[in-house]
Amino acid sequence: MQRELTPERLKFLEQDYQRGFIKFCGFQVSKIEAGMFESTIIIGANHKTQDNFIHAGLIATMSDHTAGYAAYTLVPDDVRILTVEFKINFLKPAYGNALKCQSEVINQGKNIIVAESSVFDVRDTDEKMVSKSTITLMALQAERLATKDR
Amino acid sequence: MQRELTPERLKFLEQDYQRGFIKFCGFQVSKIEAGMFESTIIIGANHKTQDNFIHAGLIATMSDHTAGYAAYTLVPDDVRILTVEFKINFLKPAYGNALKCQSEVINQGKNIIVAESSVFDVRDTDEKMVSKSTITLMALQAERLATKDR
Amino acid sequence: MQRELTPERLKFLEQDYQRGFIKFCGFQVSKIEAGMFESTIIIGANHKTQDNFIHAGLIATMSDHTAGYAAYTLVPDDVRILTVEFKINFLKPAYGNALKCQSEVINQGKNIIVAESSVFDVRDTDEKMVSKSTITLMALQAERLATKDR
Amino acid sequence: MQRELTPERLKFLEQDYQRGFIKFCGFQVSKIEAGMFESTIIIGANHKTQDNFIHAGLIATMSDHTAGYAAYTLVPDDVRILTVEFKINFLKPAYGNALKCQSEVINQGKNIIVAESSVFDVRDTDEKMVSKSTITLMALQAERLATKDR
Repeated sequence: MQRELTPERLKFLEQDYQRGFIKFCGFQVSKIEAGMFESTIIIGANHKTQDNFIHAGLIATMSDHTAGYAAYTLVPDDVRILTVEFKINFLKPAYGNALKCQSEVINQGKNIIVAESSVFDVRDTDEKMVSKSTITLMALQAERLATKDR
Repeated sequence: MQRELTPERLKFLEQDYQRGFIKFCGFQVSKIEAGMFESTIIIGANHKTQDNFIHAGLIATMSDHTAGYAAYTLVPDDVRILTVEFKINFLKPAYGNALKCQSEVINQGKNIIVAESSVFDVRDTDEKMVSKSTITLMALQAERLATKDR
Repeated sequence: MQRELTPERLKFLEQDYQRGFIKFCGFQVSKIEAGMFESTIIIGANHKTQDNFIHAGLIATMSDHTAGYAAYTLVPDDVRILTVEFKINFLKPAYGNALKCQSEVINQGKNIIVAESSVFDVRDTDEKMVSKSTITLMALQAERLATKDR
Repeated sequence: MQRELTPERLKFLEQDYQRGFIKFCGFQVSKIEAGMFESTIIIGANHKTQDNFIHAGLIATMSDHTAGYAAYTLVPDDVRILTVEFKINFLKPAYGNALKCQSEVINQGKNIIVAESSVFDVRDTDEKMVSKSTITLMALQAERLATKDR
């Protein structure tokens, strides 16, 4: 079920993670292991709500994307990962200088992979878990991605 | 339970919607009614995934934020809306020129407001619903927002 | 995508619905259409909580099972439906004489079917929607069910 | 935030757990700690699906109810716990002789308590985690329960 993470694969995952919307937001990879992925982001004014907290949408994006890459560490090169659905609870307000997200695969089926993500608010003197989410992912042959309406 | 939406309140909601992360992403308000809110976004390269689809995180952000403002239409001026949790299903891949999000409050309790959001992918010749989500929100007196750890 | 519901198929679905745990609880079928399913239950003391409301677990069971059969109306005879996950919001307390559940398929993909269920509390003089849920289902060839660890 | 669990309180929680629908299904308490609750059930034909697996609704009921009591260990005697919503992923088919559910509070706010439940399928020679769920609960003064439409 599990694949070896070669230096080439690790480099691919790190670079592939940070593209499009993810690069635009400013997320970065901080750790990769088989079935686990960790990311961080430095918080600026562009990440806030009208009430000056970190936006739930940013936290949700981080949780989803990082979970997808935790799943991506477990599948062959020609397989892609899609999010079927996710659910996220916001536990505390986030207002720190950075966020850290840890994602872990909790079950790998033939087609469906389930992961969990925890996001931590990195404040001046401590870190607090501010969200917990469960993400249902689908592993799909890359060529099936091309056909747009699955 | 429902409040009158004065021209001043409508103007406030429209302007308040588009700040911080939401402005950074490029979301815009397209319709406001009591218990309903509609938003749109023109899609560019900054909104895409590594596979050139519109990022699930962008769709989730739109669903959450628009639902929050649907709830915001129903409460007094001194009340703020927080997201307790949400769950989103991605039904079809999104790859169009724009997205449209329609959010509606389905239940308003004393403290808890539940809303649903549907996001539509606006393509060259048609529109498809690409996600459906349920958002649990909390109505909170504005002064309680100030204390950071509720 | 859609199949014809023959009288034989309708009879099969109605009988198949009410077995095991579902029969034990007392759920009954009240309407079947392509992509839709409706069930009811007469409430007794065995369905209550310690606080004399109808138990959330009963409402969740009804929502899940009825959604599965809404999906079951759309697939060939040799396909089975499994619940991948579901999420349910409890909107109001339920304390009536009966419950009614209406389930509807909102998206049918190649493998994944998404449905929504609304449960109504049937009281002396009115009906109230007491829960709303979203259910992610998987369509699977019957022979794959036999292998227990998919 | 946390209360002392006196022998009287432990006895109350154990007895209060097993009433109405929960007693009817056959769930039993196996462990109680502050912020944690564990339950078990011996599986019979009344708990199965049409395909002879343990019904998802039974697993969901166990997850929700046990999570509610994990929260109940943390609040004063005059407070009641209500389920706002929950989400459950079914990871593997369950077909064993018994189920075990472990629930844990992961965040306690002023009004909202969030818990997680893991259900294990107890088979002849091993145990497997078959579901994982997140439950959003509300702590409410007992007298507010009396007013039916909150």
